[in-house]
Amino acid sequence: MKQMVRVHNFNVSSDGYGAGDGQSLERPFGHADPAALFSWTGATASWPTRTEPGGSRGLDDYLVRDFHRNIGAEIMGRNKFGPQRGPWADHGWKGWWGEEPPFHTPVFVMTHHERPSFSLSDTTFHFVNGSPAAVLELALEAADGKDVRLGGGANTIRQFLDADLIDTLHVAVAPVELGRGSRLWNSPDDLLDWYHRDIVPSPTAGVVHHLFWRR
Amino acid sequence: MKQMVRVHNFNVSSDGYGAGDGQSLERPFGHADPAALFSWTGATASWPTRTEPGGSRGLDDYLVRDFHRNIGAEIMGRNKFGPQRGPWADHGWKGWWGEEPPFHTPVFVMTHHERPSFSLSDTTFHFVNGSPAAVLELALEAADGKDVRLGGGANTIRQFLDADLIDTLHVAVAPVELGRGSRLWNSPDDLLDWYHRDIVPSPTAGVVHHLFWRR
Repeated sequence: MKQMVRVHNFNVSSDGYGAGDGQSLERPFGHADPAALFSWTGATASWPTRTEPGGSRGLDDYLVRDFHRNIGAEIMGRNKFGPQRGPWADHGWKGWWGEEPPFHTPVFVMTHHERPSFSLSDTTFHFVNGSPAAVLELALEAADGKDVRLGGGANTIRQFLDADLIDTLHVAVAPVELGRGSRLWNSPDDLLDWYHRDIVPSPTAGVVHHLFWRR
Repeated sequence: MKQMVRVHNFNVSSDGYGAGDGQSLERPFGHADPAALFSWTGATASWPTRTEPGGSRGLDDYLVRDFHRNIGAEIMGRNKFGPQRGPWADHGWKGWWGEEPPFHTPVFVMTHHERPSFSLSDTTFHFVNGSPAAVLELALEAADGKDVRLGGGANTIRQFLDADLIDTLHVAVAPVELGRGSRLWNSPDDLLDWYHRDIVPSPTAGVVHHLFWRR
Protein backbone atom coordinates (compact mmCIF):
# COMPACT_ATOMS: atom_id res chain seq x y z
CA MET A 1 0.00 0.00 0.00
CA LYS A 2 1.31 3.43 -0.93
CA GLN A 3 2.49 5.56 2.00
CA MET A 4 0.33 8.66 2.39
CA VAL A 5 0.99 12.16 3.67
CA ARG A 6 -1.87 13.21 5.96
CA VAL A 7 -2.95 16.35 7.81
CA HIS A 8 -5.18 15.69 10.85
CA ASN A 9 -7.14 17.91 13.21
CA PHE A 10 -5.63 21.12 11.89
CA ASN A 11 -7.61 24.12 13.08
CA VAL A 12 -8.08 27.42 11.28
CA SER A 13 -10.20 30.51 11.75
CA SER A 14 -13.03 31.34 9.37
CA ASP A 15 -10.60 33.61 7.52
CA GLY A 16 -8.03 30.83 7.20
CA TYR A 17 -5.46 31.48 9.92
CA GLY A 18 -3.93 28.61 11.89
CA ALA A 19 -2.38 30.94 14.47
CA GLY A 20 -2.37 34.64 15.23
CA ASP A 21 0.47 37.16 15.26
CA GLY A 22 2.97 37.40 18.10
CA GLN A 23 3.69 33.82 19.14
CA SER A 24 5.45 33.62 22.51
CA LEU A 25 6.05 31.20 25.34
CA GLU A 26 2.92 32.47 27.05
CA ARG A 27 0.85 32.66 23.86
CA PRO A 28 1.72 29.74 21.55
CA PHE A 29 -1.01 30.89 19.14
CA GLY A 30 -0.16 34.58 19.31
CA HIS A 31 -3.14 36.91 19.60
CA ALA A 32 -5.51 34.01 18.81
CA ASP A 33 -7.49 32.37 21.62
CA PRO A 34 -6.55 28.69 21.28
CA ALA A 35 -9.84 27.60 22.90
CA ALA A 36 -11.79 29.25 20.07
CA LEU A 37 -9.80 27.23 17.57
CA PHE A 38 -9.68 23.79 19.09
CA SER A 39 -11.80 23.33 22.19
CA TRP A 40 -13.78 20.79 20.11
CA THR A 41 -10.85 18.37 20.40
CA GLY A 42 -10.71 18.53 24.19
CA ALA A 43 -14.39 17.64 24.47
CA THR A 44 -13.79 14.19 22.95
CA ALA A 45 -13.12 10.94 24.82
CA SER A 46 -9.97 10.24 22.77
CA TRP A 47 -8.17 13.54 23.32
CA PRO A 48 -4.87 12.33 24.79
CA THR A 49 -4.37 15.01 27.42
CA ARG A 50 -7.90 15.25 28.76
CA THR A 51 -7.85 15.37 32.54
CA GLU A 52 -11.43 14.32 33.30
CA PRO A 53 -13.23 11.08 32.48
CA GLY A 54 -16.06 11.04 29.97
CA GLY A 55 -16.02 12.98 26.75
CA SER A 56 -17.97 12.47 23.57
CA ARG A 57 -17.60 9.45 21.29
CA GLY A 58 -19.51 10.93 18.38
CA LEU A 59 -18.30 12.43 15.11
CA ASP A 60 -15.61 14.66 16.61
CA ASP A 61 -14.11 11.68 18.41
CA TYR A 62 -13.76 9.72 15.15
CA LEU A 63 -11.71 12.63 13.79
CA VAL A 64 -9.57 12.98 16.91
CA ARG A 65 -8.76 9.29 17.26
CA ASP A 66 -7.78 8.90 13.62
CA PHE A 67 -4.69 10.97 14.45
CA HIS A 68 -2.58 7.92 15.32
CA ARG A 69 -3.90 5.34 12.85
CA ASN A 70 -1.03 3.91 10.80
CA ILE A 71 1.28 6.91 11.36
CA GLY A 72 5.03 6.25 11.35
CA ALA A 73 6.49 9.77 11.46
CA GLU A 74 5.49 13.43 11.80
CA ILE A 75 6.80 16.53 10.05
CA MET A 76 6.28 19.93 11.66
CA GLY A 77 7.50 23.47 11.13
CA ARG A 78 9.82 25.04 13.63
CA ASN A 79 7.12 27.47 14.74
CA LYS A 80 4.98 24.54 15.86
CA PHE A 81 7.94 23.23 17.85
CA GLY A 82 8.60 26.44 19.75
CA PRO A 83 8.45 30.23 19.92
CA GLN A 84 12.16 30.85 19.30
CA ARG A 85 13.32 32.43 16.04
CA GLY A 86 16.76 32.46 14.40
CA PRO A 87 19.80 30.59 15.76
CA TRP A 88 19.25 28.54 18.93
CA ALA A 89 20.57 30.34 22.03
CA ASP A 90 20.82 26.92 23.68
CA HIS A 91 19.18 23.50 23.41
CA GLY A 92 17.10 23.66 26.59
CA TRP A 93 13.76 23.98 24.78
CA LYS A 94 12.27 20.55 24.10
CA GLY A 95 8.85 21.48 22.72
CA TRP A 96 5.50 22.32 24.31
CA TRP A 97 4.51 18.78 25.21
CA GLY A 98 6.37 17.88 28.42
CA GLU A 99 8.03 14.52 29.06
CA GLU A 100 5.42 12.49 27.11
CA PRO A 101 4.87 14.12 23.71
CA PRO A 102 1.74 12.81 21.95
CA PHE A 103 3.58 11.72 18.78
CA HIS A 104 5.24 8.37 19.70
CA THR A 105 7.22 8.35 16.44
CA PRO A 106 10.17 10.19 14.92
CA VAL A 107 9.32 13.89 14.42
CA PHE A 108 11.11 15.96 11.79
CA VAL A 109 11.23 19.66 12.65
CA MET A 110 11.87 21.79 9.56
CA THR A 111 14.31 24.60 10.33
CA HIS A 112 17.22 26.54 8.87
CA HIS A 113 18.89 26.21 12.27
CA GLU A 114 19.74 22.59 12.92
CA ARG A 115 20.50 21.13 16.35
CA PRO A 116 21.16 17.63 17.71
CA SER A 117 18.33 15.10 17.79
CA PHE A 118 16.89 14.15 21.19
CA SER A 119 14.25 11.77 22.55
CA LEU A 120 11.45 12.25 25.07
CA SER A 121 9.78 8.94 25.95
CA ASP A 122 9.04 7.23 22.61
CA THR A 123 9.21 10.42 20.50
CA THR A 124 12.49 11.46 18.85
CA PHE A 125 12.87 14.97 17.45
CA HIS A 126 15.15 15.56 14.47
CA PHE A 127 15.99 19.04 13.13
CA VAL A 128 16.34 19.17 9.39
CA ASN A 129 17.05 21.85 6.82
CA GLY A 130 15.72 21.15 3.35
CA SER A 131 12.89 21.43 0.86
CA PRO A 132 9.51 19.85 1.67
CA ALA A 133 10.31 17.04 -0.79
CA ALA A 134 13.70 16.35 0.81
CA VAL A 135 12.33 16.34 4.36
CA LEU A 136 9.43 14.15 3.27
CA GLU A 137 11.88 11.62 1.88
CA LEU A 138 13.53 11.35 5.31
CA ALA A 139 10.18 11.03 7.06
CA LEU A 140 8.85 8.38 4.65
CA GLU A 141 11.93 6.28 5.26
CA ALA A 142 11.66 6.68 9.04
CA ALA A 143 7.94 5.79 8.89
CA ASP A 144 8.91 2.30 7.71
CA GLY A 145 5.93 1.72 5.45
CA LYS A 146 3.41 3.64 7.51
CA ASP A 147 2.02 7.08 6.66
CA VAL A 148 3.52 10.47 7.50
CA ARG A 149 1.51 13.05 9.42
CA LEU A 150 2.10 16.67 8.52
CA GLY A 151 1.47 18.52 11.76
CA GLY A 152 1.57 22.16 10.71
CA GLY A 153 1.67 25.09 11.26
CA ALA A 154 -0.17 26.76 8.44
CA ASN A 155 2.98 27.97 6.66
CA THR A 156 4.41 24.47 6.61
CA ILE A 157 1.20 22.91 5.30
CA ARG A 158 1.06 25.66 2.66
CA GLN A 159 4.56 24.76 1.46
CA PHE A 160 3.59 21.10 1.12
CA LEU A 161 0.37 22.00 -0.68
CA ASP A 162 2.28 24.19 -3.13
CA ALA A 163 4.66 21.25 -3.77
CA ASP A 164 1.64 18.92 -4.25
CA LEU A 165 2.85 16.51 -1.57
CA ILE A 166 -0.29 15.99 0.55
CA ASP A 167 -2.75 13.11 0.06
CA THR A 168 -5.45 13.91 2.64
CA LEU A 169 -6.29 16.87 4.90
CA HIS A 170 -8.71 17.30 7.74
CA VAL A 171 -9.09 20.99 8.60
CA ALA A 172 -11.57 22.18 11.22
CA VAL A 173 -12.82 25.71 10.50
CA ALA A 174 -13.78 27.60 13.66
CA PRO A 175 -16.38 30.41 13.73
CA VAL A 176 -13.87 33.09 14.72
CA GLU A 177 -11.97 35.68 12.66
CA LEU A 178 -8.28 36.36 13.30
CA GLY A 179 -7.46 38.96 10.66
CA ARG A 180 -3.72 38.30 10.72
CA GLY A 181 -1.18 35.62 11.52
CA SER A 182 -0.10 32.39 9.86
CA ARG A 183 -2.50 31.72 7.01
CA LEU A 184 -3.42 28.40 5.40
CA TRP A 185 -5.76 29.71 2.69
CA ASN A 186 -8.06 32.50 1.64
CA SER A 187 -10.90 29.97 1.40
CA PRO A 188 -11.22 26.18 1.69
CA ASP A 189 -12.47 26.28 -1.89
CA ASP A 190 -8.93 27.14 -2.98
CA LEU A 191 -8.06 23.43 -2.91
CA LEU A 192 -10.92 22.12 -5.04
CA ASP A 193 -8.96 21.93 -8.28
CA TRP A 194 -6.71 19.33 -6.65
CA TYR A 195 -8.90 17.68 -4.02
CA HIS A 196 -12.31 16.15 -3.44
CA ARG A 197 -13.94 17.47 -0.29
CA ASP A 198 -16.60 16.54 2.25
CA ILE A 199 -17.97 19.37 4.40
CA VAL A 200 -19.23 18.02 7.73
CA PRO A 201 -20.46 20.38 10.45
CA SER A 202 -19.74 19.11 13.94
CA PRO A 203 -23.09 18.19 15.54
CA THR A 204 -21.96 19.41 18.96
CA ALA A 205 -19.12 21.95 18.56
CA GLY A 206 -19.24 25.12 16.48
CA VAL A 207 -16.60 24.01 13.99
CA VAL A 208 -17.08 22.75 10.42
CA HIS A 209 -14.86 19.87 9.34
CA HIS A 210 -13.42 19.95 5.84
CA LEU A 211 -12.13 16.56 4.67
CA PHE A 212 -9.99 16.66 1.52
CA TRP A 213 -8.55 13.84 -0.52
CA ARG A 214 -6.62 14.00 -3.76
CA ARG A 215 -8.41 13.89 -7.09
CA MET B 1 -8.42 1.37 29.73
CA LYS B 2 -11.82 -0.30 30.00
CA GLN B 3 -12.63 -2.73 27.19
CA MET B 4 -15.59 -1.53 25.15
CA VAL B 5 -18.32 -3.30 23.20
CA ARG B 6 -18.78 -1.56 19.86
CA VAL B 7 -21.14 -1.79 16.88
CA HIS B 8 -19.67 -0.49 13.61
CA ASN B 9 -21.10 0.13 10.15
CA PHE B 10 -24.39 -1.57 10.89
CA ASN B 11 -26.96 -0.74 8.23
CA VAL B 12 -30.70 -0.50 8.66
CA SER B 13 -33.64 0.65 6.55
CA SER B 14 -35.53 3.83 7.40
CA ASP B 15 -38.07 1.63 9.23
CA GLY B 16 -35.33 -0.05 11.26
CA TYR B 17 -34.70 -3.40 9.58
CA GLY B 18 -31.17 -4.78 9.24
CA ALA B 19 -32.26 -7.51 6.81
CA GLY B 20 -35.41 -8.55 5.05
CA ASP B 21 -37.43 -11.74 5.28
CA GLY B 22 -36.41 -14.97 3.56
CA GLN B 23 -32.62 -15.16 3.99
CA SER B 24 -31.06 -17.77 1.71
CA LEU B 25 -27.73 -18.65 0.15
CA GLU B 26 -28.64 -16.54 -2.87
CA ARG B 27 -30.17 -13.71 -0.84
CA PRO B 28 -28.17 -13.16 2.38
CA PHE B 29 -30.39 -10.18 3.19
CA GLY B 30 -33.66 -11.81 2.23
CA HIS B 31 -36.04 -9.65 0.22
CA ALA B 32 -33.87 -6.58 0.94
CA ASP B 33 -31.54 -5.21 -1.75
CA PRO B 34 -28.16 -5.19 -0.02
CA ALA B 35 -26.91 -2.39 -2.29
CA ALA B 36 -29.64 -0.07 -0.99
CA LEU B 37 -28.47 -0.74 2.55
CA PHE B 38 -24.72 -0.53 2.28
CA SER B 39 -23.41 0.57 -1.08
CA TRP B 40 -22.01 3.61 0.81
CA THR B 41 -19.35 1.33 2.32
CA GLY B 42 -18.12 0.02 -1.02
CA ALA B 43 -17.57 3.56 -2.32
CA THR B 44 -14.85 4.21 0.28
CA ALA B 45 -11.11 3.73 -0.17
CA SER B 46 -10.86 1.59 2.97
CA TRP B 47 -13.54 -0.97 2.14
CA PRO B 48 -11.55 -4.21 2.39
CA THR B 49 -13.05 -6.06 -0.57
CA ARG B 50 -13.16 -3.23 -3.08
CA THR B 51 -11.91 -4.44 -6.42
CA GLU B 52 -11.03 -1.14 -8.07
CA PRO B 53 -8.48 1.49 -7.01
CA GLY B 54 -9.64 4.87 -5.81
CA GLY B 55 -12.61 5.40 -3.53
CA SER B 56 -13.47 8.27 -1.25
CA ARG B 57 -11.45 9.28 1.79
CA GLY B 58 -14.06 11.61 3.25
CA LEU B 59 -16.48 11.13 6.14
CA ASP B 60 -17.75 7.69 5.09
CA ASP B 61 -14.18 6.42 4.92
CA TYR B 62 -13.50 7.49 8.52
CA LEU B 63 -16.46 5.37 9.59
CA VAL B 64 -15.45 2.36 7.49
CA ARG B 65 -11.83 2.33 8.57
CA ASP B 66 -12.65 2.58 12.27
CA PHE B 67 -13.98 -0.99 12.01
CA HIS B 68 -10.60 -2.54 12.89
CA ARG B 69 -9.23 -0.01 15.40
CA ASN B 70 -8.34 -1.76 18.65
CA ILE B 71 -10.68 -4.71 18.08
CA GLY B 72 -9.67 -8.05 19.61
CA ALA B 73 -12.75 -10.21 18.99
CA GLU B 74 -16.13 -10.18 17.23
CA ILE B 75 -19.50 -11.55 18.31
CA MET B 76 -22.14 -12.30 15.68
CA GLY B 77 -25.48 -14.04 15.54
CA ARG B 78 -25.81 -17.30 13.69
CA ASN B 79 -27.96 -15.65 11.00
CA LYS B 80 -25.05 -13.37 10.14
CA PHE B 81 -22.82 -16.42 9.82
CA GLY B 82 -25.05 -18.31 7.42
CA PRO B 83 -28.54 -19.05 6.07
CA GLN B 84 -28.95 -22.45 7.77
CA ARG B 85 -31.46 -22.89 10.59
CA GLY B 86 -31.71 -25.59 13.26
CA PRO B 87 -29.15 -28.42 13.68
CA TRP B 88 -26.18 -28.41 11.31
CA ALA B 89 -26.61 -30.96 8.49
CA ASP B 90 -22.81 -30.94 8.15
CA HIS B 91 -19.91 -28.58 8.82
CA GLY B 92 -19.15 -27.64 5.24
CA TRP B 93 -20.44 -24.08 5.55
CA LYS B 94 -17.66 -21.72 6.62
CA GLY B 95 -19.36 -18.34 6.35
CA TRP B 96 -19.93 -15.89 3.49
CA TRP B 97 -16.43 -14.48 3.40
CA GLY B 98 -14.24 -16.97 1.50
CA GLU B 99 -10.73 -17.95 2.53
CA GLU B 100 -9.82 -14.50 3.94
CA PRO B 101 -12.59 -13.33 6.26
CA PRO B 102 -12.34 -9.61 7.11
CA PHE B 103 -12.26 -10.13 10.88
CA HIS B 104 -8.66 -11.20 11.66
CA THR B 105 -9.58 -12.07 15.27
CA PRO B 106 -11.53 -14.75 17.10
CA VAL B 107 -15.23 -14.63 16.14
CA PHE B 108 -17.90 -15.96 18.49
CA VAL B 109 -21.02 -17.14 16.66
CA MET B 110 -24.04 -17.28 18.99
CA THR B 111 -26.11 -20.38 18.34
CA HIS B 112 -28.12 -23.06 20.09
CA HIS B 113 -26.43 -25.56 17.77
CA GLU B 114 -22.75 -25.74 18.58
CA ARG B 115 -20.10 -27.17 16.26
CA PRO B 116 -16.29 -27.42 16.33
CA SER B 117 -14.21 -24.27 16.00
CA PHE B 118 -12.27 -23.73 12.77
CA SER B 119 -9.85 -21.17 11.34
CA LEU B 120 -9.68 -19.44 7.98
CA SER B 121 -6.48 -17.43 7.58
CA ASP B 122 -6.16 -15.35 10.80
CA THR B 123 -9.85 -15.58 11.76
CA THR B 124 -11.06 -18.36 14.08
CA PHE B 125 -14.79 -19.07 14.40
CA HIS B 126 -16.15 -20.43 17.68
CA PHE B 127 -19.78 -21.55 18.12
CA VAL B 128 -21.20 -20.81 21.52
CA ASN B 129 -24.52 -21.27 23.23
CA GLY B 130 -25.24 -18.85 26.05
CA SER B 131 -26.67 -15.54 27.15
CA PRO B 132 -25.29 -12.29 25.71
CA ALA B 133 -23.46 -11.68 29.00
CA ALA B 134 -21.91 -15.16 29.01
CA VAL B 135 -20.78 -14.95 25.38
CA LEU B 136 -19.45 -11.46 25.97
CA GLU B 137 -17.32 -12.76 28.82
CA LEU B 138 -15.68 -15.26 26.46
CA ALA B 139 -15.11 -12.58 23.82
CA LEU B 140 -13.65 -10.07 26.26
CA GLU B 141 -11.16 -12.64 27.46
CA ALA B 142 -10.21 -13.62 23.89
CA ALA B 143 -9.82 -9.94 22.97
CA ASP B 144 -6.92 -9.70 25.40
CA GLY B 145 -7.49 -6.13 26.52
CA LYS B 146 -8.81 -4.84 23.21
CA ASP B 147 -12.44 -4.03 22.44
CA VAL B 148 -15.13 -6.42 21.22
CA ARG B 149 -17.05 -5.69 18.03
CA LEU B 150 -20.67 -6.77 17.95
CA GLY B 151 -21.30 -7.56 14.30
CA GLY B 152 -25.05 -8.14 14.16
CA GLY B 153 -27.55 -9.03 12.86
CA ALA B 154 -30.30 -6.84 14.20
CA ASN B 155 -31.74 -9.49 16.53
CA THR B 156 -28.34 -10.05 18.13
CA ILE B 157 -27.71 -6.33 18.61
CA ARG B 158 -31.21 -6.00 20.07
CA GLN B 159 -30.43 -8.70 22.66
CA PHE B 160 -27.25 -6.90 23.71
CA LEU B 161 -29.07 -3.56 23.88
CA ASP B 162 -31.77 -5.09 26.08
CA ALA B 163 -29.03 -6.45 28.37
CA ASP B 164 -27.35 -3.00 28.42
CA LEU B 165 -24.03 -4.42 27.21
CA ILE B 166 -23.12 -2.00 24.35
CA ASP B 167 -20.88 1.05 24.77
CA THR B 168 -20.98 2.61 21.29
CA LEU B 169 -23.01 2.06 18.11
CA HIS B 170 -22.64 3.37 14.60
CA VAL B 171 -25.80 2.66 12.61
CA ALA B 172 -26.23 3.92 9.05
CA VAL B 173 -29.88 4.51 8.17
CA ALA B 174 -30.61 4.05 4.47
CA PRO B 175 -33.46 5.82 2.62
CA VAL B 176 -35.34 2.62 1.84
CA GLU B 177 -38.27 0.90 3.57
CA LEU B 178 -38.31 -2.86 4.11
CA GLY B 179 -41.58 -3.39 5.97
CA ARG B 180 -40.57 -6.75 7.44
CA GLY B 181 -37.53 -8.77 8.45
CA SER B 182 -35.00 -8.55 11.28
CA ARG B 183 -35.65 -5.32 13.13
CA LEU B 184 -33.24 -3.27 15.24
CA TRP B 185 -35.66 -0.56 16.39
CA ASN B 186 -38.87 1.30 15.66
CA SER B 187 -36.91 4.54 15.63
CA PRO B 188 -33.31 5.58 16.39
CA ASP B 189 -34.81 7.80 19.08
CA ASP B 190 -35.65 4.64 21.06
CA LEU B 191 -32.07 4.64 22.41
CA LEU B 192 -31.89 8.21 23.65
CA ASP B 193 -32.67 7.41 27.29
CA TRP B 194 -29.43 5.39 27.43
CA TYR B 195 -27.21 6.99 24.83
CA HIS B 196 -25.94 10.32 23.57
CA ARG B 197 -26.21 10.61 19.80
CA ASP B 198 -24.72 12.51 16.88
CA ILE B 199 -26.72 12.52 13.63
CA VAL B 200 -24.40 12.99 10.64
CA PRO B 201 -25.75 12.79 7.09
CA SER B 202 -23.24 11.36 4.64
CA PRO B 203 -22.17 14.19 2.33
CA THR B 204 -21.97 11.84 -0.68
CA ALA B 205 -24.17 8.79 -0.07
CA GLY B 206 -27.88 8.81 0.77
CA VAL B 207 -27.46 7.36 4.25
CA VAL B 208 -27.61 9.14 7.61
CA HIS B 209 -25.09 8.05 10.22
CA HIS B 210 -26.28 7.73 13.82
CA LEU B 211 -23.41 7.63 16.33
CA PHE B 212 -24.40 6.57 19.85
CA TRP B 213 -22.35 6.47 23.02
CA ARG B 214 -23.46 5.61 26.51
CA ARG B 215 -24.73 8.29 28.86
